[in-house]
Amino acid sequence: MQRFALLGAGFIGSVHAANLAAHPGVDFRLVYDVDRARAQTLAAAHGARAASDLADVFDASAVDAVFIASSTDTHAMHLRRAAEAGIAVLCEKPIDLDLHHARETATYAAKSGIPVMVDFNRRFDRDYSELKRILDAGEIGQVELVQLSSRGPVLPPLSYIATSGGQMRDQTVHFFDLARWLTGLDPIEVFAAGSALAEPRLVDYNDVDTSAVTLRLPGGGLVQIDSARRTGYGYDERIEIMGSTGMAEAGRHRTGAVSRYQTGKIVTDGMHAGWFERVRPTYGAALAHFVAALDEGTVIAPSLEDGLKAQAIAEAAALSLRSGKAETIHYGPSLIPSAAASA
Amino acid sequence: MQRFALLGAGFIGSVHAANLAAHPGVDFRLVYDVDRARAQTLAAAHGARAASDLADVFDASAVDAVFIASSTDTHAMHLRRAAEAGIAVLCEKPIDLDLHHARETATYAAKSGIPVMVDFNRRFDRDYSELKRILDAGEIGQVELVQLSSRGPVLPPLSYIATSGGQMRDQTVHFFDLARWLTGLDPIEVFAAGSALAEPRLVDYNDVDTSAVTLRLPGGGLVQIDSARRTGYGYDERIEIMGSTGMAEAGRHRTGAVSRYQTGKIVTDGMHAGWFERVRPTYGAALAHFVAALDEGTVIAPSLEDGLKAQAIAEAAALSLRSGKAETIHYGPSLIPSAAASA
Amino acid sequence: MQRFALLGAGFIGSVHAANLAAHPGVDFRLVYDVDRARAQTLAAAHGARAASDLADVFDASAVDAVFIASSTDTHAMHLRRAAEAGIAVLCEKPIDLDLHHARETATYAAKSGIPVMVDFNRRFDRDYSELKRILDAGEIGQVELVQLSSRGPVLPPLSYIATSGGQMRDQTVHFFDLARWLTGLDPIEVFAAGSALAEPRLVDYNDVDTSAVTLRLPGGGLVQIDSARRTGYGYDERIEIMGSTGMAEAGRHRTGAVSRYQTGKIVTDGMHAGWFERVRPTYGAALAHFVAALDEGTVIAPSLEDGLKAQAIAEAAALSLRSGKAETIHYGPSLIPSAAASA
Amino acid sequence: MQRFALLGAGFIGSVHAANLAAHPGVDFRLVYDVDRARAQTLAAAHGARAASDLADVFDASAVDAVFIASSTDTHAMHLRRAAEAGIAVLCEKPIDLDLHHARETATYAAKSGIPVMVDFNRRFDRDYSELKRILDAGEIGQVELVQLSSRGPVLPPLSYIATSGGQMRDQTVHFFDLARWLTGLDPIEVFAAGSALAEPRLVDYNDVDTSAVTLRLPGGGLVQIDSARRTGYGYDERIEIMGSTGMAEAGRHRTGAVSRYQTGKIVTDGMHAGWFERVRPTYGAALAHFVAALDEGTVIAPSLEDGLKAQAIAEAAALSLRSGKAETIHYGPSLIPSAAASA
Repeated sequence: MQRFALLGAGFIGSVHAANLAAHPGVDFRLVYDVDRARAQTLAAAHGARAASDLADVFDASAVDAVFIASSTDTHAMHLRRAAEAGIAVLCEKPIDLDLHHARETATYAAKSGIPVMVDFNRRFDRDYSELKRILDAGEIGQVELVQLSSRGPVLPPLSYIATSGGQMRDQTVHFFDLARWLTGLDPIEVFAAGSALAEPRLVDYNDVDTSAVTLRLPGGGLVQIDSARRTGYGYDERIEIMGSTGMAEAGRHRTGAVSRYQTGKIVTDGMHAGWFERVRPTYGAALAHFVAALDEGTVIAPSLEDGLKAQAIAEAAALSLRSGKAETIHYGPSLIPSAAASA
Repeated sequence: MQRFALLGAGFIGSVHAANLAAHPGVDFRLVYDVDRARAQTLAAAHGARAASDLADVFDASAVDAVFIASSTDTHAMHLRRAAEAGIAVLCEKPIDLDLHHARETATYAAKSGIPVMVDFNRRFDRDYSELKRILDAGEIGQVELVQLSSRGPVLPPLSYIATSGGQMRDQTVHFFDLARWLTGLDPIEVFAAGSALAEPRLVDYNDVDTSAVTLRLPGGGLVQIDSARRTGYGYDERIEIMGSTGMAEAGRHRTGAVSRYQTGKIVTDGMHAGWFERVRPTYGAALAHFVAALDEGTVIAPSLEDGLKAQAIAEAAALSLRSGKAETIHYGPSLIPSAAASA
Repeated sequence: MQRFALLGAGFIGSVHAANLAAHPGVDFRLVYDVDRARAQTLAAAHGARAASDLADVFDASAVDAVFIASSTDTHAMHLRRAAEAGIAVLCEKPIDLDLHHARETATYAAKSGIPVMVDFNRRFDRDYSELKRILDAGEIGQVELVQLSSRGPVLPPLSYIATSGGQMRDQTVHFFDLARWLTGLDPIEVFAAGSALAEPRLVDYNDVDTSAVTLRLPGGGLVQIDSARRTGYGYDERIEIMGSTGMAEAGRHRTGAVSRYQTGKIVTDGMHAGWFERVRPTYGAALAHFVAALDEGTVIAPSLEDGLKAQAIAEAAALSLRSGKAETIHYGPSLIPSAAASA
Repeated sequence: MQRFALLGAGFIGSVHAANLAAHPGVDFRLVYDVDRARAQTLAAAHGARAASDLADVFDASAVDAVFIASSTDTHAMHLRRAAEAGIAVLCEKPIDLDLHHARETATYAAKSGIPVMVDFNRRFDRDYSELKRILDAGEIGQVELVQLSSRGPVLPPLSYIATSGGQMRDQTVHFFDLARWLTGLDPIEVFAAGSALAEPRLVDYNDVDTSAVTLRLPGGGLVQIDSARRTGYGYDERIEIMGSTGMAEAGRHRTGAVSRYQTGKIVTDGMHAGWFERVRPTYGAALAHFVAALDEGTVIAPSLEDGLKAQAIAEAAALSLRSGKAETIHYGPSLIPSAAASA
């Protein structure tokens, strides 16, 4: 049994709490939140207790692993403290919005030797896992063209967007990670174009809500990613990968399989209302992977290195949005080898 | 080049005329219709001439084949005359609404040795041909359960229905033929239930517009056919065949591949407005098969025997509609062997 | 909080146990099974305890509701005892394989006034609920033709089939209930044809594994149900309903939305391996309905009357399999009005 | 009746010849080809005659319209001669591979006042027309993100590619035109990335076979186009358009609607073998539009201006392939207003 503490009792924290409580190999012990009452409520609902302070959490004699689901600006601090305490970490992305700081922290954590997983949960989606299997099995040959769509239904509040790091770092970064993971390649160059169409005031934040990104892979394969913050028709994500000998597609998900046949048209169930309905099962699957890796001592992915690399692509994409030209992606030096392994 | 005369210049005659004109191996010579002016108009549009009388048509020195597309009550008469003249026949179904008379006529024609094909055009549908190939290749094993749907959008005029022979003989008969052809088996028993839902006055004609038929195949396989005269959502036909090792389905056809994504629903292109839009290409394909068989002297199917057998099933089904029990299907003696071959 | 006892700790009992444990309005107290060790294991996994005997279960001071998921031949006995004790019941179908005995027991329970729900779980399927909503909203007009497919992937063991009551009572009965519920009508007549194709030895059990059923509804609407015990391609169920002004379909479910495009074909994710994967979420939804009805004192459906009516159709269908003709369905007298209400 | 001469008797010429012969409002008179025998064969098959020389073709007393389907390097010459003779023109794209020369020729033709249509046949695709209708009706609001895929199954011969002008000017140009037509907007900027993956020797021709293009529209909308010369799975084109209030998609076409259900997978009919099977009906529809416009004196589109604009985008895209940055698109001055109108 892995003894877990959860940091953060907001919406996503509550999702993780339910998964921690349901996992048969997890002893869910502690919840910490800056809002103590919120921590207590969540802990009580799942048979855990609220931590009195962070010292309570970072106590290796009582806790094997922490799940960092607190606000973004606290990730690095918690990660560093876990590294000091020798406690394993499952961390919401990003490590830190500042890539330089993120790299410093990751390097520190990597040197400490603690197991760390960055929670790029979409890697654990049933359909994307199947895409990965198809690619790895060589069923479509070498990757030549990839399309990823990332489209949210409703613009988040401006207050959220203001501190999010912008569309590339906050939204598209998940698909930068998927592109790397699915193809097994680190893109070398990125071009990004974007506009503020849903919310023109985003210009004041130097941000966009609608964008088209092109990545060049080593070997010449090309990746297109479109991102939108507001669709008008629900939540939509989709991936297709054309290889040299065939194509594989993870299609749109619908809320059901009901169709109504009328004169001249057929009306079917539509898209999910939001991202959470679409990706809900991936959180539990990601946790299960992390716990199994801890139990068996196997390699953990997505690694800290994976987290840094996705951020490095986002940085170059954000630069390209401004420069109007393709930008080289700078990944920086690898973390120490043992921690740098990627699935 | 096969020299053709066309009997009947109504709607379906005009479809056949266009196909005869377009076929590179056909010399389209004559059109005959009781309405001479109609024959002349159609002939002129396709570079043929209107026949002055039936003697003009049944002249083996000038005509190799006749396409019988005249009114149903004249099919048998024309078929007999073609047999006398030694002219090949492509005949719209049925040979005659009266099965006894149809059998007499078919026997006469079979003895004459002329090539005859009954125009069950759906056998030449691209998707149904592919179903047949799948079955014949053993890809789904032995046939166990078959579903066929035959649903027209709009009730034909009562005047048409009154002389049509009823839903079993007029509409479902096409699917009796498909069931025989696809499975390669002659059903042994039929149960039919029906109602007059779209047009209650059909009761006065001893007819139904909505029906559910069950056929039992030799070996125990079962076939379900639903037929409707009025759908409210367009023309709809569909076939699925469950075999012992898999299932094959010829799905619904839509008018296009356009989808509109809206909040909570997706609206796609609907069904065809009528049967003709759905099966249009099958007429040319049926003609091409007939011409190729004449050119090469190969076996022609659907044969007269096929026509009689589909009618025999329809007779038993019509009887079951009244009796409320499963009825044995009586196929009668085979025609002389050489003409009885079926694909 | 409703205090629950669970009767039966086999496979389906374990499914219900997990749902009882997860429901926030349920206090899951007891598990009873003739195999005491099995009861203990299941109880321990969900924070309940194993009942020492049936008296422990049927104690209204400690238990508000029992979930009867024990072997079929014990349902009636447990139901009667719950009625005596004044404890609410959620009961796996059927009440008893013998319709006469089932009716006696149901009458007894109805008179006692306890809330009883028969667990026709498919009524709680997301897509079937949506079909029901479409029908009730009048979106497709009056029901005219209904198709239901019920196809299992693998023949159950002969030992199971021998005591199951046969395909009509064991498998098709779920779809008899769905047909009644969706259309809101009690079928008046049934015709059934069947064969033992997957397992010829079923003939020795007077049973079939492949069948085609036709139901006639009041007003003339027709229902076709095909049932198969072994498909060769996975688990398959599907419903479509043609009304007077349109059609609604609850399509097949696939395991995912991944497609592989190859030369000449596209390979997509297939059907579920078994029934459980397809209907899994319906069990929790059915339980939630029952608990909500207990909490709020609202009408409970599917009712005992619903259970008896589905069985009555199955009886007539089994008779038709032997008689070869359409059989009238005899529903018997209603239970006392208050308990007979159906959704 | 419009009297037509056809220039070019190669593959695409033979397609146009059949459409000219079948159109009831066309008097198909002449075929010209540098290979006289080829012209004679094609003419004979459709009841036309081979022109003895070009003077025979450009004779306004006998010919109302010419269909220019000869080799690309002859388009401009024939267009100029038709302008001199006052004969209407339906012209295969491009006017000339050299944009400067194309503009000179188009200006000359525009000044002459002859009706000219550039045969961007995809505008007449049933599904793309429906997309256009949806957009124009405002059903999805303002255009924000557009995806177009253009993927051929097999690399053309190097000899063809060498003189084609490259992927942007030869293949993607059709989708530049579709993007303009569908959105009703002239893109202002283009970024293109490409690789020679299917045929590395394309590098020697300064060409690519796999590319990703991003267009920026006035107002900030973004368009992504991926183009491939060799798919490994058949011919594939697809369009989706996300607007501010919904999304519309013209999905992939399959060769049929047959599915085979097997354990764990469903195998459906695949993509068309080549572009021609996919777009075949568009040629006749384009011709019909041209003839109707001549008959009724209405505006003709795609116009010469449309042809030049698509080429201008291709030029800028080809430049971006080399420069690695977004390039402004220079459309040049409008042709004289009367000829510049676009649908």
